[in-house]
Amino acid sequence: MKIAIAQLNPIIGDLSGNAVNILKAAETSSIQGVRLLLTPELSLCGYPPRDLLLNPNFIAKMLQRLQQLARELPQNLAVLVGTVEPNFEAELQGKKSLFNGIALLEKGKIQRIFHKHLLPTYDVFDEHRYFSAGDKSNVLILEEEGQAIKIGVTICEDLWNDEEFWGKRSYQVNPIEDLARSQVDFIVNLSASPYSVSKQNLREAMLRHCVLRYKIPIIYTNQIGGNDDLLFDGNSIAFNRNGTLICRARSFATDLRIVEFNPEKQDFLPIQISPLPDCEEAEIWSALVLGVRDYARKCGFSQAVLGLSGGIDSALVAAIASEALGSENVLGVLMPSPYSSEHSLKDAEALVDNLGINSETIAIAEAMTAYDRLLEPLFSGTEFGVAEENIQARIRGNLLMAIANKFNYLLLSTGNKSEMSVGYCTLYGDMNGGLAVISDVPKMRVFSLCRWLNREREVIPQNIIIKPPSAELKPDQKDQDSLPPYEILDEILRQFIEERYSIEEIVNSGCDRATVEKVARLVARAEFKRRQAPPGLKITDRAFGTGWRMPIASRITN
Amino acid sequence: MKIAIAQLNPIIGDLSGNAVNILKAAETSSIQGVRLLLTPELSLCGYPPRDLLLNPNFIAKMLQRLQQLARELPQNLAVLVGTVEPNFEAELQGKKSLFNGIALLEKGKIQRIFHKHLLPTYDVFDEHRYFSAGDKSNVLILEEEGQAIKIGVTICEDLWNDEEFWGKRSYQVNPIEDLARSQVDFIVNLSASPYSVSKQNLREAMLRHCVLRYKIPIIYTNQIGGNDDLLFDGNSIAFNRNGTLICRARSFATDLRIVEFNPEKQDFLPIQISPLPDCEEAEIWSALVLGVRDYARKCGFSQAVLGLSGGIDSALVAAIASEALGSENVLGVLMPSPYSSEHSLKDAEALVDNLGINSETIAIAEAMTAYDRLLEPLFSGTEFGVAEENIQARIRGNLLMAIANKFNYLLLSTGNKSEMSVGYCTLYGDMNGGLAVISDVPKMRVFSLCRWLNREREVIPQNIIIKPPSAELKPDQKDQDSLPPYEILDEILRQFIEERYSIEEIVNSGCDRATVEKVARLVARAEFKRRQAPPGLKITDRAFGTGWRMPIASRITN
Repeated sequence: MKIAIAQLNPIIGDLSGNAVNILKAAETSSIQGVRLLLTPELSLCGYPPRDLLLNPNFIAKMLQRLQQLARELPQNLAVLVGTVEPNFEAELQGKKSLFNGIALLEKGKIQRIFHKHLLPTYDVFDEHRYFSAGDKSNVLILEEEGQAIKIGVTICEDLWNDEEFWGKRSYQVNPIEDLARSQVDFIVNLSASPYSVSKQNLREAMLRHCVLRYKIPIIYTNQIGGNDDLLFDGNSIAFNRNGTLICRARSFATDLRIVEFNPEKQDFLPIQISPLPDCEEAEIWSALVLGVRDYARKCGFSQAVLGLSGGIDSALVAAIASEALGSENVLGVLMPSPYSSEHSLKDAEALVDNLGINSETIAIAEAMTAYDRLLEPLFSGTEFGVAEENIQARIRGNLLMAIANKFNYLLLSTGNKSEMSVGYCTLYGDMNGGLAVISDVPKMRVFSLCRWLNREREVIPQNIIIKPPSAELKPDQKDQDSLPPYEILDEILRQFIEERYSIEEIVNSGCDRATVEKVARLVARAEFKRRQAPPGLKITDRAFGTGWRMPIASRITN
Repeated sequence: MKIAIAQLNPIIGDLSGNAVNILKAAETSSIQGVRLLLTPELSLCGYPPRDLLLNPNFIAKMLQRLQQLARELPQNLAVLVGTVEPNFEAELQGKKSLFNGIALLEKGKIQRIFHKHLLPTYDVFDEHRYFSAGDKSNVLILEEEGQAIKIGVTICEDLWNDEEFWGKRSYQVNPIEDLARSQVDFIVNLSASPYSVSKQNLREAMLRHCVLRYKIPIIYTNQIGGNDDLLFDGNSIAFNRNGTLICRARSFATDLRIVEFNPEKQDFLPIQISPLPDCEEAEIWSALVLGVRDYARKCGFSQAVLGLSGGIDSALVAAIASEALGSENVLGVLMPSPYSSEHSLKDAEALVDNLGINSETIAIAEAMTAYDRLLEPLFSGTEFGVAEENIQARIRGNLLMAIANKFNYLLLSTGNKSEMSVGYCTLYGDMNGGLAVISDVPKMRVFSLCRWLNREREVIPQNIIIKPPSAELKPDQKDQDSLPPYEILDEILRQFIEERYSIEEIVNSGCDRATVEKVARLVARAEFKRRQAPPGLKITDRAFGTGWRMPIASRITN
């Protein structure tokens, strides 16, 4: 029995467009004699649909489109399509009004809808907001040439509650255990599992563990694509009964893979494995490129603009944008001020040359003078400070938005995670943009990405990598005048934000107490800025996006 | 038996400050012979603490502070304090690691912690993200003068699942029913129930229904205060066994009320009812004033700045800010451009006089010229359009932020809900601010609030109310050139956003199809702006804040 994995890239809410892509995968599969086509979780509406699910009309349209899709599909194929199903008993049972489901489409009809049992409600996931948990057995029996194959159907999180693997339970039930008891021939899992660095290693270790524990082969189908802050890396996989990886689809790209289940051997064949990126930098690079490409495309932009300061952050973002959209579709704007060093302009120009992007140079002194004159009656007698520094960043932000508005470019903001953490950035200034490309990339990782980019030839001019970081908003300013060295800052931030360690614990790990306390204070105080930041591409396990929900008006006891 | 209601205004995360306020209420209560003191839900950390709850150190500190509070409290008093409790069985059971609890503090100790049974996970609520649902009976027996009184303890949502009242169940269990079966003498409910227009009528109708259905008196204690976007109105209440309201604490103010339970009559006395605001405008006004006052205070600001355009939105916000912070602490900045009409400046000046606030005038033409000159090489040959309009708004935004940064003022943004819905506002321009004061107030309500403000004397100059709204970003511009008349727009938006009606349904209610389709398109397209908006004070049942979770990169099927 041939089973196809359609690793699809949906547009959220685009029922017709997503259905067409499912249909195309089905047609290709059908020609190749596939019996069962797998698509990702909520493949019809895209994941995550968020509050679109609260719109009854959207739900009705989804079900109509599902019925239409069932009629359009090739007749010889069974297709599992991710969709919601109304829970008609919800008001009687006191439950949520929808199920997160997988519809079995076959012979022109919706034959059945399986329900997701485990509903993630943590980090970026809000599934208890929308869904009732399924509690029925998800066994699908498919016949081919007189043979009945028993398949266990699971949806994403259903697979993530193995207390042996995790050392704890996260949910009361384990759907895999239940399916094993039903003696299914293999399990399919239809996922929309967001990317974070090295997550595929975790997924493969977990799947292998489940396969070996229950002696059941598993096929795992994942969504790919960028949807706002969330990146989906694909990497769909299948494991044989003995724990051998026999299929891996591409990373960060759509794909269609066919595996064959041999009922005699009770196993999958043949082996077809796409390699994973060969280091974390290569992986993050692909993730960010996909994130920019998809955000632009799905929002209707084909061109992007960004400010080039001559610093490393904007250099990296320019390189990512060139790869994502084509260098001819990227405009870098150099906006020197009287505080800009000579090398800034030179370094930015060298970057423009290396990347082959378009550039414009606009010296901002005249606008600075205009603001100074307008504010003179109010500011006279005060000292140059943060207000004046921010004016420069905001003039640049205003110029970039004017260009973006005029020519319908997507403005990309260039701040990194270290800056966003401690608020070393200007709201309505350098934070301006439709997408914050590297706002989940710590500064030290920005350096390592640039060094990796230069592995064969100079992409990022060497001077940009080696010079000390500076915002250049006042004479001779260096980041390290206000912040701890980035190697120390990033380590404190990792412990504080990603590991959720206390100040005491971080100090005990060997960091200077005053520095840790300062960083904790800065992180809390920058919350109002982060709340107004553009969506930022998530690459770590704890990003400042939909999974970060902090109060602003607060007095935090650390 | 005397029972006190402490209607408290916590600062999120401020364990010590909040504990001190509980202690003060306890001391006052103790002197008056109170046996039981009630405080709101999560009164120790403030509601909603959001992801502070994911920080293990914060949880440990909360429990330490709770123990200390138990020791500090007067010995003759039992106090119910809102706190979390770790669920030590969580990892075995596959549940969340915390309970939302109410600690009984008495005789220097934490005697017991009751758990919340119903965990709201909709709109602004995310309780399944943090909490396990309690499943034990919450009966508290308190003795006084040899008599044992049986009290049912419930937390906020526990009261909101009466299928008779709502016509449906929202949860599988009804804690009130369970307590009625236990034959408690009365029920206490400790809440943090956010404000929306007329919500108190709903609460009182629901409580009365429960009281009459189960023949049990209920005391309801609510939090007050503004926490970011959420406003809590207080209005704590008690109902007698026969459904008579016998106590209502103040609206939008802290309060301490004492009711007495008479074991013979099995009822509360005496009657002490604070009146509700006498119309919706009065109520909304108090809500917004509290929201500004608390956001400023809790973020450490004592002064505010805002732009005065001469229009009605900024006029209303200036009036709210004056009431909240004192007119001497409000700076209105007039920033005329060559497109500003003469009346704009005059109207704004009249407003400044009426309110007695400080003002500055900064003509922005010079900055406009500077930008025009800087952008000339790029923009030459293009027509004046949205890019140029936005530059003006962003110059004003930049000036306001410069003033806010320089003098440590809180910048208030002034956009209304109608504008925010359709994107008739400039990101990084007039949307700038730490708090969006009226971003959940539809334009027609802005008018009615201003007319109400003028009920005794002219606060908002009459011309500001009667002139046609205009952004004045190009010559002779009127809002109604680009948008439907506000009475039509607001009705469509109400149906589309608050009622979640489809385009078809709105058209069937008598609206023009082309207009409805245009509005729906504008609402979807403005999502990227709303994502970067400052927190806005929530006064409706569906605000663009923490309870609005929409994708940006999407293609929505309406």
